[in-house]
Amino acid sequence: MDILFKNATIVTVDDDNFVIENGFLGVDGNEITYLSNKEPKILAKREIDAKGKVLMPGLINSHTHIPMSVLRGFADDYDLQDWLYNHIFKAEAKLDEKCVEIGAKLSIAEMLMTGTTSITDMYFKEPTVCKVLAETLMRGNVCNGSLWFGEEYDPEKDNSFKEFNEMIENYHNFDDGRIKIDAALHAEYTSNPSVWKFWSSIAKEKGLNMHLHLSETKSEHENCKEKYGKTPTEILSENGVFDVPTNLAHCVFIEPSDMDLIKAKNGSVVHNPVSNLKLASGIANVSLMLEKGLNVCLGTDGVASNNTHDLFEEIKLSALLAKGSTNNAKALPAKTAIKMVTINGAKAQGRDDIGVLKIGNKADIIMLDFENLAHTPTHDVVSSLCYNTSGRDVLLTMVNGKILYENGEFTTIDIKKVKEELESYVLPRIK
Amino acid sequence: MDILFKNATIVTVDDDNFVIENGFLGVDGNEITYLSNKEPKILAKREIDAKGKVLMPGLINSHTHIPMSVLRGFADDYDLQDWLYNHIFKAEAKLDEKCVEIGAKLSIAEMLMTGTTSITDMYFKEPTVCKVLAETLMRGNVCNGSLWFGEEYDPEKDNSFKEFNEMIENYHNFDDGRIKIDAALHAEYTSNPSVWKFWSSIAKEKGLNMHLHLSETKSEHENCKEKYGKTPTEILSENGVFDVPTNLAHCVFIEPSDMDLIKAKNGSVVHNPVSNLKLASGIANVSLMLEKGLNVCLGTDGVASNNTHDLFEEIKLSALLAKGSTNNAKALPAKTAIKMVTINGAKAQGRDDIGVLKIGNKADIIMLDFENLAHTPTHDVVSSLCYNTSGRDVLLTMVNGKILYENGEFTTIDIKKVKEELESYVLPRIK
Repeated sequence: MDILFKNATIVTVDDDNFVIENGFLGVDGNEITYLSNKEPKILAKREIDAKGKVLMPGLINSHTHIPMSVLRGFADDYDLQDWLYNHIFKAEAKLDEKCVEIGAKLSIAEMLMTGTTSITDMYFKEPTVCKVLAETLMRGNVCNGSLWFGEEYDPEKDNSFKEFNEMIENYHNFDDGRIKIDAALHAEYTSNPSVWKFWSSIAKEKGLNMHLHLSETKSEHENCKEKYGKTPTEILSENGVFDVPTNLAHCVFIEPSDMDLIKAKNGSVVHNPVSNLKLASGIANVSLMLEKGLNVCLGTDGVASNNTHDLFEEIKLSALLAKGSTNNAKALPAKTAIKMVTINGAKAQGRDDIGVLKIGNKADIIMLDFENLAHTPTHDVVSSLCYNTSGRDVLLTMVNGKILYENGEFTTIDIKKVKEELESYVLPRIK
Repeated sequence: MDILFKNATIVTVDDDNFVIENGFLGVDGNEITYLSNKEPKILAKREIDAKGKVLMPGLINSHTHIPMSVLRGFADDYDLQDWLYNHIFKAEAKLDEKCVEIGAKLSIAEMLMTGTTSITDMYFKEPTVCKVLAETLMRGNVCNGSLWFGEEYDPEKDNSFKEFNEMIENYHNFDDGRIKIDAALHAEYTSNPSVWKFWSSIAKEKGLNMHLHLSETKSEHENCKEKYGKTPTEILSENGVFDVPTNLAHCVFIEPSDMDLIKAKNGSVVHNPVSNLKLASGIANVSLMLEKGLNVCLGTDGVASNNTHDLFEEIKLSALLAKGSTNNAKALPAKTAIKMVTINGAKAQGRDDIGVLKIGNKADIIMLDFENLAHTPTHDVVSSLCYNTSGRDVLLTMVNGKILYENGEFTTIDIKKVKEELESYVLPRIK
């Protein structure tokens, strides 16, 4: 056994065995090989005393744009259109590959530090993001959402398609599936049926999941209905987009019938509560989605509309918003919120070997301090994870059996160098 | 000069001078005596290098119930009535004075650690809370909200009145005004006009502020209209409650005309966004209140409906909710949120010497780490305080010129003992 965690409160996220008190968890290579409330008789190369600590599956950020960390707080409190066109797009135009690399490393460091072990990332220059994931040993699904404002789609003229091919060739299923490439559309309103058909057929042909933004704002949802006489969900579905498993970011304005369609097509919804509020998009009806049995997961969106990658904020806010917006204090209880950010996220990424701590699963594990004042007292560990845990409580983060963060130190990221390069290279460009 | 902070980014919350870069702040006794971007020529007994740090006024928690920290996470995800009657009230009935003392100390420790320096607290056994404030050197307005389910009010039969007299005698304006006693009603629906008239006249006679819960839930608001033909704001106002400065907790369901009345009477509103969502009360229309010029401040409410005292969560959530609920991304910008938790809170407490860092004000100051990843990069310090700062960033907390918390250590609280007593004395009682 390579590593044995001892005496931990283990939140497995496995319904048969959700919480193990005073538990033992062993890791060999990249897998969980032991899980019990009894100490194993085998010796481990390293034993970690986790008394007073909580172990849980690493968190899954199901929708983000990691190079955007360089724009953290760059333009807050602006109207969405002003924010996007006069600030964000202008700054993004100045981001070269080195900027994207630095931003990606900065985000991954922040994520590891706050308990995230797997991401679904959509941006441009994504082969660089793949390179950073490969080097830092982070897990992720990566895509470059196709945007096409012309008429009939010509993939050879679309840089997204070029990047896609490069990523499929070099990174798809890299390192035992640690990196996966998704097919992706930016959104309904930034493309047309020829684009949707092309990417649907590519996704089907290569057996990929599809990632896209869906009905994030009221205007895009209503404009689509005006243009096509159908909701974005309906028109995309008619054009084959839902024929592969889809991971649908935002869904603030999807209608009950859209939810039924997504459910029938086995799609997943990514709720981004902080971003949806901050950009004044609105509040997604997650309670109804859950009632209809949809797989709902959580994302931070890009840090410029958040301004953090700490998924514990999304966990708490998703539970709070569901209650406040439905006048039902029992809506979206703690356990459901924890599942959204673990097992549901794994499903949305097309992964069946993470999101739950069980024997045979990949060892994506975080260890949290539950002895600090934020957890004094703890009447219910799952409730505490939802309502009074912060990413700042993370003591250790393991991805694929490797410890990537422990007590303030990163094992695969030279954070001092990243910060220096951010200051000397990136910031002067975007200021 | 007793203490000099050097090279800090100082967020003064003073409109004439909101942010001072590379600033110097000096403290003598319990006062701020120096504030400039130039180094003073006087020597200080202690110099604190605050390069890469942010100094700002200590945060003000304008509505809380600090002994309730012992019930953190005690009964989450329940209906309000079930939560209150079957869980919280039953547990509270078991809390003796020692429990209240331990809970109060635990909360004050958590608050100091996360940057709060002044509180408005309402609970029972409040003389014990005064004692704890006195001993720990924390600042606060304290009250025991009167509840009266009988007919004509008989103060001699009301334990709140007994506690009130005890506190007025022993603690009002204690330590140069560090502790103040407020007159208080629990709420409209838990008393009657004879109670309101009595407490209004007491408040007027003694020159006190008044603290109460107002229109927190839809049912209490509507029931009042049915019973009296008037909103709670209207009927309380008619009975003199607003003749002294009032500090009105929640106000989720106050109507535009109520807001006008509160504004005319110089009342303050305490927004408790986490609690209002968690208990499914709703979302207060803070944008409209601000538009009407009301003094809006922030509170955590009791930790059982939160589950933390970290006011940075309320800052961010208030900014987010205002945007999301009004479809206006410019609503409640960062600067406004920061004012709510500082200068506005000071006003609601009837204090004109805290909430802003300026010469002559009391030295209630916090120092935050802005060199960690959560603040990398910082494009705008005020925006970062709102959207990506956590109470966990607090490095030092000073109240009334005394450092009460620094780098994980408390100077007036034996936190180990508090935790031990919580385990051995309190928890066995309420389990």
